[in-house]
Amino acid sequence: MSSYTKYTPSTEARTELHDRLSLTGAEISINNLPAGGCVPFVHAHKENEEIYYILSGKGSAVIEDEAVELSKGDWLMIPPASRRQLYASKEEGISYICIQVKSGSLSAYTAEDAIAY
Amino acid sequence: MSSYTKYTPSTEARTELHDRLSLTGAEISINNLPAGGCVPFVHAHKENEEIYYILSGKGSAVIEDEAVELSKGDWLMIPPASRRQLYASKEEGISYICIQVKSGSLSAYTAEDAIAY
Repeated sequence: MSSYTKYTPSTEARTELHDRLSLTGAEISINNLPAGGCVPFVHAHKENEEIYYILSGKGSAVIEDEAVELSKGDWLMIPPASRRQLYASKEEGISYICIQVKSGSLSAYTAEDAIAY
Repeated sequence: MSSYTKYTPSTEARTELHDRLSLTGAEISINNLPAGGCVPFVHAHKENEEIYYILSGKGSAVIEDEAVELSKGDWLMIPPASRRQLYASKEEGISYICIQVKSGSLSAYTAEDAIAY
């Protein structure tokens, strides 16, 4: 296996990194919704928790019928079963990262998982 | 379980999200290295792949003795066993996200894992 993989996305509406980076523990997408736009469906997940990070702009997530305001710098975790839909604000688009990971899959992390040299 | 968790980090040197967001499939840190700074050790991981996203600035990752230049917008995946050390450039600091996930843990994702409503 290569010692690393690297990729620099363009500004497409959606860029998916799983295959481009040879990810095995996550799928990551970079998403750009224009002002007034939204992900055109409500969804939940079978196994994966989703972690969102807002890169720029403004919008909201409607989660189980509750609207959560989002702006640059916010982080949001949504467990698998919560129904969700993402919206840009009417005045301004929103750009965000969405990280999918299998719920409960992390065993150890940081110092506990590290090998120091 | 709550239907979501949300957090907005400050600009500390390092912010860890696992406990703040109740993550179960990842640890995520937001890191700010000043110009000329570096993570003060070389490390690898036992089980976790690391995914880096550069938020701003410039620097490099030295991975198995190879220097990989990094700047805003770059994504990098490092498998568990690769020895790595992160540096800011001499002229400019670097801010980045580091996502730790268990290598091989993702079973299905996106359409295959989704429940549409």
